[in-house]
This record gives sequence, C-alpha cells and structure tokens, in this order.
Amino acid sequence: MHRIKLTVAYDGTAYCGWQVQPNGTSVQSVLQAAVEDLVGGKINLTGASRTDSGVHALGQVAIFDTDMDLDPRQFARAINVRLPEDIVVQESCEVPIDFHPRYAKIRKTYSYRVLNSSVPNPFLRRYSLFYPSRLDLQAMQEAAAILTGRHDFRSFSSKKPDVGSTVRTIESLTLERRGDLITLRVSGDGFLYHMVRILAGTLLKVGRGQKNITDIRQALRNPRFQAAGPTAPARGLLLEKIEYLE
Amino acid sequence: MHRIKLTVAYDGTAYCGWQVQPNGTSVQSVLQAAVEDLVGGKINLTGASRTDSGVHALGQVAIFDTDMDLDPRQFARAINVRLPEDIVVQESCEVPIDFHPRYAKIRKTYSYRVLNSSVPNPFLRRYSLFYPSRLDLQAMQEAAAILTGRHDFRSFSSKKPDVGSTVRTIESLTLERRGDLITLRVSGDGFLYHMVRILAGTLLKVGRGQKNITDIRQALRNPRFQAAGPTAPARGLLLEKIEYLE
Repeated sequence: MHRIKLTVAYDGTAYCGWQVQPNGTSVQSVLQAAVEDLVGGKINLTGASRTDSGVHALGQVAIFDTDMDLDPRQFARAINVRLPEDIVVQESCEVPIDFHPRYAKIRKTYSYRVLNSSVPNPFLRRYSLFYPSRLDLQAMQEAAAILTGRHDFRSFSSKKPDVGSTVRTIESLTLERRGDLITLRVSGDGFLYHMVRILAGTLLKVGRGQKNITDIRQALRNPRFQAAGPTAPARGLLLEKIEYLE
Repeated sequence: MHRIKLTVAYDGTAYCGWQVQPNGTSVQSVLQAAVEDLVGGKINLTGASRTDSGVHALGQVAIFDTDMDLDPRQFARAINVRLPEDIVVQESCEVPIDFHPRYAKIRKTYSYRVLNSSVPNPFLRRYSLFYPSRLDLQAMQEAAAILTGRHDFRSFSSKKPDVGSTVRTIESLTLERRGDLITLRVSGDGFLYHMVRILAGTLLKVGRGQKNITDIRQALRNPRFQAAGPTAPARGLLLEKIEYLE
C-alpha cells in the first residue's frame, strides 16, 4: 500500500468548496472521481484545508492510499487527463503511510487580492475583490503589524459547533500594492473558520478610516466571534501553499 | 448629437466574438443592449476591431451617437451597471462627430500569452495557450526581428472574401519570458484576418526547431494564404490597445 500526496491548484468559482456537500459539486468529489477512475476502485481522499465555496487554491494538499504500481510522480499527469480544466494536480509524490495532511506541523500561506481601481477588470473578476474606494495602505500595514504574532483570534472568526482553542500564531501578515492590485499575504500555523476573510474585511475598514489601531487591539483583547470586522467575499481568497515542517 | 467613444475590456471566453453573429452571443450585441437601455432608444455601435470568438480585449474601441445629456465621462459607469461582469467599459469620452474607429490612422497592439510549463495553471486557462514543450526563445526572437517592418503578410493570414492589399507594417514584435509565461506583443498599423494568431503559431514552430529563419524569409517572399504556420488558439490572444495617431 502506498500513500500518495497530491498538490492541487483549482479555480474555486464553480465549486461549493473543497469538501463534499449535500448540494453542489465539491473539488474533493471531482478529484476523488478522477483518482478512482485512474486506480479502478474506491479511494478515500483526505484534504489539508476545507476551503469555502468560491475560494481558490494553488497549493491545496490531499492524500489517498493505493496499491497501484505507478511511479508516484506520474500520478499528477495521469489524474490531470481525467479532470476539468479548473482543477490541476501540480505535483504528486509518495509519503510515509502515517502521514496525515491535517495532523502535522504545518505552515499555511493564504493571499487575498483587492482590485483598488475606479473600474473593474474582467480578467480579475473571479480572483479579486473590486474595491474602488481610496485605501490608506500604510494604516492597513500598521494594523497588520499589531495582528502579527500569537493571539486569541476569536474576534476574527465565525463560530463553528466544534471549535476548540481560538489561539493561533500569525507568522507574517503583509500588504503590498502593485499598480491597482493590493495583495494581503498571511502565513501561520493554522487559521480559524473565515479568519483570513475577516482579517481582509477588517483591514479594508482600517484602510477606509472606519476602524483604527485601537479597534484592532480591542478586538484582540476582548475576543468575541466576528467582533472585528466584516467577512470579505470568497473570490479574493487563495490558498497559496501548505508547508510541512517536520 | 454627440459621438461617444468607449474603451472596452472583455473576457471573450463566453462570446462568439465582437461582431453580431447569427448564432451565439456577441460582445457587441450585449454592449449595444446595455447602451440602449441607458439612453432609452436604438443606437448603432461601431467597433474598431472584429475580435474572433474567444479572443479577449483590454482596449477595444467602439462609438455610438446619442442626444442624451450626460457628462461624456459618466457613460462608462452608467453602462457598466447594465453589463455582465465579463464586459467592462474602462473609459468614455466625446469625440468629433466625424470620428470613425476603423477609418483613422491607428496603432494597434495585441499580445499572445503562452504558458510554457510542465503543468497547466487553472487561473490562466482562459487567457493563455498551455504549451509544455521546451522553447528556444532566442530563435523565436530572431525570427520576430525578421518579421518586423513593412511586408506582404499574406502567408500569415487566413483568406477572407473581401481581402484587399495584404501589405502591413509591424512596428514592433517582441517576446518576453517571465517565469513560465511567455508574452508575444505586436504593434502595427493594422492586422490581417488571423494574423496575430498565425504569427504566434509560426513562432512557436520556430521555438520548437520545426521551422527556421529561412522558412520565415520564404513565407514573406512567396506570399500565399496560411503558408507560414498554424493558427494558435484564440484563448491566448488579447487586444491590448488601439491608439489614434491624429
């Protein structure tokens, strides 16, 4: 038995998210069907990150077990010919049979894109939030510096039934402007439900002058679900990569 | 009566091209309906360039005449709220009543994008040609230099019933690689039917070593329709801008 690890990119626009749902087509179900067609039998596909409906990925990670006798690096190509164009396996390799994509020491990196121009761009419409208001990038960067580090991020998450600790570590949180496009990029050991989208929504409020540094400190000191700011739309969010640290 | 000039960007994926066709939805018909809804009556919309099915534009130009009393710069926003997300008016202004977007001294710039990597990219699938073979960029650049200038480009075009002279001037033709993405960019006083896509298809053959400089010279000296090379797929092509020179 071999455990195969896939690195998967997808345009999430057409999907109800990574995870299998009662309604809508999930990335996981389409990918699982492609793998099953290749190996000729049922498999269990386990993903590292449950991206929401409309969220994109460059480096989602998923594993499955198989007896199939194929060079592990060849799975990527063999699966890709069975996939629609909006899901692409970037890489495949074999991992130890006890490797689990969620229960390992990891670093995740997400980015959130904001098109800050007076007119929309038809090519970025699926991959960015169109936000024509003037933004104070320096104020956003100052707020980002306060959010960096180990904090209780409960105010920056939506409630889920099985939530445990809401303490997480943001290793880095940067904002960069290139022309009309502002990219927020955040790395950390894990993210709460909606956390990156609430970070983005809150920092946009800071950029417009509707929230300030004091509000950010307050949201960290007094952790209550969704107390920080609004949840930015899914389309701007991209799971860039997942690094396994041990 | 005012003549209003629109600069229009669109993702051509869902359309049968710019021009109204018996089958399929054209960019022109959708834009015309949006303008008619705004001005409250019939208008004629005249475009500068008849982009093919699946071809994209950043800077298509179109005009219409209206008596509507609106600041000419405000038409863009007023039309955009009546358009789907894949068509966006970038800019509007008033032009002299005798301005015609095709019968004027112009410079057009097109680009063609090639994703030259071993795996496809789901985010570029609509906007580039996926071409995994190794390409000799220097050989392509040498061939591009030969194509630059005033030539009979008949070998680099598809036949059309009403074709006149096939002599055109390419002012510049460059190829640039950034990471996995190769961008061909060409500017000139006008382009024949399928010309940019045949330039791209021919230069890709040069990049693979399947055509050489002698073949290019031969195609220019002995002009016969489509004698140069294959027509690259529409999805990689983008009408970047149209400049009016007088």
